[in-house]
Amino acid sequence: MNILVVYAHPEPRSLNGSLRNFSVKRLEEAGHAVQVSDLYAMNWKASLDANDSRVAPRDLRFDPSLDSKHAFEHGLQSEDIAREQEKLRWADTLILQFPLWWFSMPAILKGWVERVYAYGFAYGVGEHSDARWGDRYGEGTLAGKRAMLVVTVGGWESHYSARGINGPIDDILFPIHHGILYYPGFDVLPPFVVYRTGRTDEARFATLCDELGRRLDDLANTAPIAFRPQNAGAYDIPALTLRPEIAPEMNGFAAHIG
Amino acid sequence: MNILVVYAHPEPRSLNGSLRNFSVKRLEEAGHAVQVSDLYAMNWKASLDANDSRVAPRDLRFDPSLDSKHAFEHGLQSEDIAREQEKLRWADTLILQFPLWWFSMPAILKGWVERVYAYGFAYGVGEHSDARWGDRYGEGTLAGKRAMLVVTVGGWESHYSARGINGPIDDILFPIHHGILYYPGFDVLPPFVVYRTGRTDEARFATLCDELGRRLDDLANTAPIAFRPQNAGAYDIPALTLRPEIAPEMNGFAAHIG
Repeated sequence: MNILVVYAHPEPRSLNGSLRNFSVKRLEEAGHAVQVSDLYAMNWKASLDANDSRVAPRDLRFDPSLDSKHAFEHGLQSEDIAREQEKLRWADTLILQFPLWWFSMPAILKGWVERVYAYGFAYGVGEHSDARWGDRYGEGTLAGKRAMLVVTVGGWESHYSARGINGPIDDILFPIHHGILYYPGFDVLPPFVVYRTGRTDEARFATLCDELGRRLDDLANTAPIAFRPQNAGAYDIPALTLRPEIAPEMNGFAAHIG
Repeated sequence: MNILVVYAHPEPRSLNGSLRNFSVKRLEEAGHAVQVSDLYAMNWKASLDANDSRVAPRDLRFDPSLDSKHAFEHGLQSEDIAREQEKLRWADTLILQFPLWWFSMPAILKGWVERVYAYGFAYGVGEHSDARWGDRYGEGTLAGKRAMLVVTVGGWESHYSARGINGPIDDILFPIHHGILYYPGFDVLPPFVVYRTGRTDEARFATLCDELGRRLDDLANTAPIAFRPQNAGAYDIPALTLRPEIAPEMNGFAAHIG
């Protein structure tokens, strides 16, 4: 397979850096082709703005969506964006690796999503009408590819359990899993989460590598999270609410998993 | 009151820009002192890294937490960070205003949180032991202050309803409300959310301003979201799970609201 690792940690000699190095080696030894977007090393521009197009805004006002659409359609995107889109097209599997900072991805990675996910590439794909709300949530440019998060967390696993004070990890990651990865078409694998990263000695690191290695070995065979596709009958359109007969007793994030 | 508006949109002539201008005027006319951190206009550095301290990392390896702690304790933070912390100390109320991009705040604002929320300022405050897990979630440096989100959303309100495809807006915003605002001590007011922003003509804008104006007029009197304090008996420490007798039938984000 072709595997793209998008990696966001400022210190290569960190636990994240070591896990990244391990992953690349393991994947290459298994015969995969691997590319790494090391966002800090690339000095990735985090903030989406009018400079993301090589021409001035079409209007006096910069419109983040419409100017993205114009730049994407006319080959006018800044080169760093186009290059990352090319890597996504090349990849069969995407791995996003990052430390959980304030219950989400680091800003530099969020800015990768915002800038690379152009209108026409990751959203605004397919027919948009009151009868069809685009090719998204299971369809789209990146359909047929797989994605997985590798996340390090300072707190304890219990803090992220069903009744843990930070909220359940699956709910904290839902906006990324469902809203960022499933939205443009990825099949999303269960995440690999490392807790309590401050307590990682050599022995624990070896154990983590064993566990992560097994997940990497199984990338092609792991069952994705069973998110419900938007356009296969579970949702009323254009309200985009679950039909009454689908999981009638459920609300919230979990209702979108079949 | 002293009110800090942290605002993240790249185009001043946008709906967000117009709502920001309206808010500042309304608040000033009501006699409040207002400061605005216009992150795009300030060219805010979004990515947390070793340059956030005016000295090199204490170790060969940059450690985001420990180097933040060192810089905060010794007055070595970069000036843009110290300035924002000063504004937060000055403020009685914080308003974060932003467009919802990929189900979270824009990268530039996430980077404001990551960099301004230093170790010793917004986390790592108070005793940390197996008997007490710091002053956080209801206590901390920013306790006694209020915070409110003003968020613009492209999609429809139904898409963000209890059974809407994007997930309920309260759950999407929980990591910000609870994890970013309540964590360092803010009382968090219900958010002001504008949906379907692509359809905002003059008449609708006037209605939005009326609604937002009422929320701004009521800042001091609006009941905060009733998040459960960490250190008032609802949680077992150090597991930091809800005690069995607290909302025994509930799991997930909603269990942390009393």
